[in-house]
Amino acid sequence: MARKQTTLAVVEDAALDVESRVTDDNHASLKLWLRMLSCTTMIETEIRSRLRREFGITLPRFDLMAQLDRHPQGLRMGDLSKRLMVTGGNVTGIVNLLEQEGLVARDAVPGDGRAFSVKLTPAGRRAFKRMATAHEGWVEELMSALSTTERTALMELLSTMKRGLNAPEQVQD
Amino acid sequence: MARKQTTLAVVEDAALDVESRVTDDNHASLKLWLRMLSCTTMIETEIRSRLRREFGITLPRFDLMAQLDRHPQGLRMGDLSKRLMVTGGNVTGIVNLLEQEGLVARDAVPGDGRAFSVKLTPAGRRAFKRMATAHEGWVEELMSALSTTERTALMELLSTMKRGLNAPEQVQD
Repeated sequence: MARKQTTLAVVEDAALDVESRVTDDNHASLKLWLRMLSCTTMIETEIRSRLRREFGITLPRFDLMAQLDRHPQGLRMGDLSKRLMVTGGNVTGIVNLLEQEGLVARDAVPGDGRAFSVKLTPAGRRAFKRMATAHEGWVEELMSALSTTERTALMELLSTMKRGLNAPEQVQD
Repeated sequence: MARKQTTLAVVEDAALDVESRVTDDNHASLKLWLRMLSCTTMIETEIRSRLRREFGITLPRFDLMAQLDRHPQGLRMGDLSKRLMVTGGNVTGIVNLLEQEGLVARDAVPGDGRAFSVKLTPAGRRAFKRMATAHEGWVEELMSALSTTERTALMELLSTMKRGLNAPEQVQD
C-alpha cells in the first residue's frame, strides 16, 4: 500500500504541475488532453505495480498473454509485434521467457518452413485466466468514483473521440 | 500521411480486437478502460510521430523540456526523474544530448558541491516555444470530433475519476 500511494503521489504531482500552466480558457483542449493522459497513466501505473506485486509479471508479458488468449489458434511473431506495438526483439525475449516457464508453445506454420506461431499452453491459459480476473477487479475498483451513468457517458464521449481519430479527414469537414 | 494512417490503423486494429472480447454488460468497466487506453495511445502515438517528423525530437526529450519550461529556476536531476517517471540514467542521457545542442545548461546547486540543477538556455526556451505551439494545435485537431460541450463534459468526468484515484480509501465509503 505504501508503494501504491507513493506511485500515485508522484504521478499526481507531475500532473498537477502540468495543469498549473494551462489556466487560460484558450488552452481547454490541451488541459483536457493532459487530464486524460494523467488519469490513464495513473491507472496504468497502478495496474503495472499490482501485476508485479501479486503475480510477479510485467505488463508487456501480461499484454502478450492477453493477445494469445484472444487468439487460441496462435499468432505469428510479426502479428504479435504489431498488436503490442513493440519491436520484434522484445517480443522474442518475452516469448522465450514464457516458453521456458511452460506458458506458451511454438508451432511451425504449415506451408512456411521458416515461420512459426505462438499459442498459450493449457497451463498458460489457466495462469492468464487467474490474472485476467484480478485485473478486471482492479479496473472496476479504479473506476469506482464514477457512477454507472457517468461511466456510460464517458464511454460515449470516448467513442466519439475514437471515431474522429479513425477518420481524421472527415473531422475537418 | 501514409505513416500516420498506418500507425493509427495498427492501434485501432489492436484496440478493436481487445474490445471484441468484452461484449457482456458485466465487463463495462473493463471495456471503458480499454477504450480510454486506446484513445490515449492513439493520440500519444500520433503526437510522438509528429514531434519526430516535424522537429526531429523524441517525446521524452519534449517532455523533459516541458518540465524545464515550467521551472525557469531549474530542476535537480532527481526531481526531473521523478516528474518524468523515467530512471536517472535516461534523464542523464537526454540532458547530455540537449546540453551538446546548447538547449539546456547545468548550474551547481549553492551549498551542495555535488548536486547541480538543469535549466533551459534562451535558445532552448525559444525551441520549446515553437514545439509547444505546434503541439497544442495538434491536440486541438485530434480532439476536434468533440464539441465544446462534449469536451467540458469529458473534463468533468475525468476530474471525478482523478479525484477517486487520488483518494482510493474514500472511494470505498
